[in-house]
Amino acid sequence: MYPRLATRAEATVFTMVLTRGPVTRVEIARRSGLSSAAVTKAARPFIEAGYLEELQATERTTPGAGRPASPLTIRAQREFFTGVKITDDELIGVVTDLRAQPLVSARHPLDTMSPEGVLAALADLVAELLAADPAYRERCHWLGLAVSGDVDQVHGMVRYSPFLGWRQVPLARLAAEATGLNVTVENDVKSLTVAEQWFGEGVGASSFALVTVGTGIGCGLVVNDRVVPGWNGVAGEIGHIPVGGDEPECHCGGRGCVEAIAGAAPIVAAVRAATGDASLSIDAAIDVAHAGNTAAREVFARAGHAIGLGMAAMANLVGPERIIVTGDVQGLAAYDLFEEQINRSFTSQAFGAAADCRLLLRPRSFEQWARGAAAVAIQTHFSLQER
Amino acid sequence: MYPRLATRAEATVFTMVLTRGPVTRVEIARRSGLSSAAVTKAARPFIEAGYLEELQATERTTPGAGRPASPLTIRAQREFFTGVKITDDELIGVVTDLRAQPLVSARHPLDTMSPEGVLAALADLVAELLAADPAYRERCHWLGLAVSGDVDQVHGMVRYSPFLGWRQVPLARLAAEATGLNVTVENDVKSLTVAEQWFGEGVGASSFALVTVGTGIGCGLVVNDRVVPGWNGVAGEIGHIPVGGDEPECHCGGRGCVEAIAGAAPIVAAVRAATGDASLSIDAAIDVAHAGNTAAREVFARAGHAIGLGMAAMANLVGPERIIVTGDVQGLAAYDLFEEQINRSFTSQAFGAAADCRLLLRPRSFEQWARGAAAVAIQTHFSLQER
Ligand SMILES: [Zn+2]
Ligand SMILES: [Zn+2]
Repeated sequence: MYPRLATRAEATVFTMVLTRGPVTRVEIARRSGLSSAAVTKAARPFIEAGYLEELQATERTTPGAGRPASPLTIRAQREFFTGVKITDDELIGVVTDLRAQPLVSARHPLDTMSPEGVLAALADLVAELLAADPAYRERCHWLGLAVSGDVDQVHGMVRYSPFLGWRQVPLARLAAEATGLNVTVENDVKSLTVAEQWFGEGVGASSFALVTVGTGIGCGLVVNDRVVPGWNGVAGEIGHIPVGGDEPECHCGGRGCVEAIAGAAPIVAAVRAATGDASLSIDAAIDVAHAGNTAAREVFARAGHAIGLGMAAMANLVGPERIIVTGDVQGLAAYDLFEEQINRSFTSQAFGAAADCRLLLRPRSFEQWARGAAAVAIQTHFSLQER
Repeated sequence: MYPRLATRAEATVFTMVLTRGPVTRVEIARRSGLSSAAVTKAARPFIEAGYLEELQATERTTPGAGRPASPLTIRAQREFFTGVKITDDELIGVVTDLRAQPLVSARHPLDTMSPEGVLAALADLVAELLAADPAYRERCHWLGLAVSGDVDQVHGMVRYSPFLGWRQVPLARLAAEATGLNVTVENDVKSLTVAEQWFGEGVGASSFALVTVGTGIGCGLVVNDRVVPGWNGVAGEIGHIPVGGDEPECHCGGRGCVEAIAGAAPIVAAVRAATGDASLSIDAAIDVAHAGNTAAREVFARAGHAIGLGMAAMANLVGPERIIVTGDVQGLAAYDLFEEQINRSFTSQAFGAAADCRLLLRPRSFEQWARGAAAVAIQTHFSLQER
C-alpha cells in the first residue's frame, strides 16, 4: 500500500496533485504556502511508491529561470476504489481509479432490505466488480458505501435510514467482514458532494452547494473548504425549508416544506387531482405535462417555484460560490418543466450578490452516486485524520 | 510588539491558550495533535514576550507521572485592542484586553454620516479611549471597526452599507490614517459572531449560529470552525428567507421574508393598524403589547413565528450545535413577546435531531457590538494568514 500520510505537507501536496494536477512543485508551493523544499520532500514518497510521476518538463520556462518545471501528475491506476450506492431495490456499484473515474459498473437487485440480505448481495456485487480485472483484486483495498438517511460517518453507522428501514446498523464493520475491504459509509447526498468537491464542479471553490431534485429534494454543502457535517448529522435539509407559508403539511411534521410541494409524491397527487386520473404514476404525470396539459404544467411550475425559493434561502444563508443542480431519473426527466420557474424564483428571492451565484445543471446517473461513495473512500484514505 | 506568528503550531498553541486557557501543554498536545516538544517550542516565544505565563503546577498529578503539569495562561493585559461599532447616529467604542474583555467604553454622537465626518469623530473617540490609561496608548496597536452591511474584510472596504449610505468606502485605510493604528473592518453581525466564537458561547463548538433580533433580523454562522464569509460577502441573511409564502413584499425585492414580517418597521405598521393609532413608535408598540393588548400581542406572536421558522430553516441547512439569540435594545425589550412562539415554531419546523440544538438567549449591549469589533482585530492579529 501507499506510504502512510505522515504529515500535513504530504496530505496537502498529494491532494493538490490528485484534485488539480498536473501541477508544478512551484505552483504547489505558491498555492499551499509550503516551501519548495517541503513540497519536494513531501512528494518523494509518493513518487517512489508509484502514485505520482513527473511529466516531461515543459519548454515554456524563460531563459535563465533555472531548470524547467516538471509538473507532477497522478498515476491514476496505481490504486482502485469500489463504490456502492444502496437503494431500496438494488445495489449499484463501480470500480474507479484514483481520480474517481468509473472503470466498470454493475447492479444487483435486492429482494430483501434486511441488513443480512443486503450484505450478502453486497459481497456478491463487490466480488463481481473486482473480478473484472486482476489489477482490481490486487490494488483495491477500499469500499465506499452511500446510503440515504442519517449516517454517522466517523463510526460507519447508519443511524436511521427511512428508505431502507434501518436503525443503528453498524454497516462499515459488517461490510468489512463481508468483503475484506476497508469500508467508509456516508450519506448519499454528502457522498455526491464529495465527488464534486474533489473531482467535479466543486474543484477550486471554497464553498458550493449540490441540490438534488427527485423523489425528495436534498442538498450537500461545502463551506470553508469542507463538507458541512451538521451537528448530529443534520445538514442540507433544503427540502424542509418552509417556503409555502402554512400549507401543505409535510411528512417531517413541518408545514409548507419545499419537499411537501416539489417532492415526487405531492407532484403526483396534484397532477392526479388536476387531471382527474387517480392512477397516474410520476412518469405518466411528467408525460402529461410534456404533452402540454396546462394544469399539469402549472403543478410543475409551482414545484419549481418552491425549489427556487429553497435554493435562494440556502444561498442567502451560506453564500455558495456555485450551485450544482442534479437529480434522480425522474427529477431530471422533469427538469425542463421546473427549470424556468426555478431560475426566476431563485433570482427574485436571492439577496443582493447572492443572485450572481452560478447555477449549473449536471445530470448524474445512479452510477455517479456509486462513484460518490468511492470518492468518500478516496478522500478518507488520503486525508490526514485530525484529532 | 509580540513575536510574529511564524508557524501553524504557534498559531494553534497561542489561540488555544487565549480562548480555552488555562490549559496544560499535555492537554494542548492532545487536542491539537502536536507533539509535546512542538507545543513547548511554540509556546516559548510568547512566554518570553510576556503574552503567556505558567501558572503554579497543580498538585493533582498522579505519583510517578513525571513533573507536575503547569498550565499555561494568557497575560490578558499584555496588549490592548480598541473596537468601535459605527451606527447611523453614534460611535460606540471600547478598549479591551487580549481576551476581548471591555475595560473602558465611550460614545460619540454623529451629526453627519459623511465618511470624513465619521472619521474625524472616530479619531476623537479613539484618542479619548486611549487617554484613559497610559498603558493603552503604549500597548494598543489595533482598532477593529464594525459596520452594518456588505463589507470586504480582506481589503478593509465597506462595499455597501444602506444604513450609513456608504458605497465603496476604503474604511480600513482611512481609519488607519486617522488614528495611526492597524485597522480591521468587518460586518457588525460577523464581528459579534467572532466574539462569541473565541470568547463567548461559541467556544468549543465547531458550528454555531448567532441570530440578532431587532430593527432587522440578522445571523452570523460558524461552520467547520470558521465564520462563513459568503461568496461576495453574502451570508447569514436569515431575514430574507421566505417563510411567509407570497406575502408580504420585502424591501429586498423578495416576498414573505422573515424581516418583512418580524422587522421593527412591519411590526410597527401592523400594531398601528391593529390599534388604529397611526403615530405609535416601536417602543410604544412594545408597551401596548406588554400592557396586554391582544391584537398587538398577536402581531409579535406572528413575528416570533416567522423568526422561529427562519431559525429552523437555518438549522435544517447548516446544523449548528448551538443558536445564540441576541438583539438590539428594542429587539430584546420585545423578546418576551416573541419568545414562546419562536421556540414553538422552531421546534415544529426543525428537522429530526436539528430540534435538539440548544437555543441560548444572550442580551448584548451596544458595547458588546464594539467588543465584537475588537475581537475581529484580535483574531486577525493572532491567526496565521494563509494563502
Ligand atoms: Zn418537511
Ligand atoms: Zn427580504
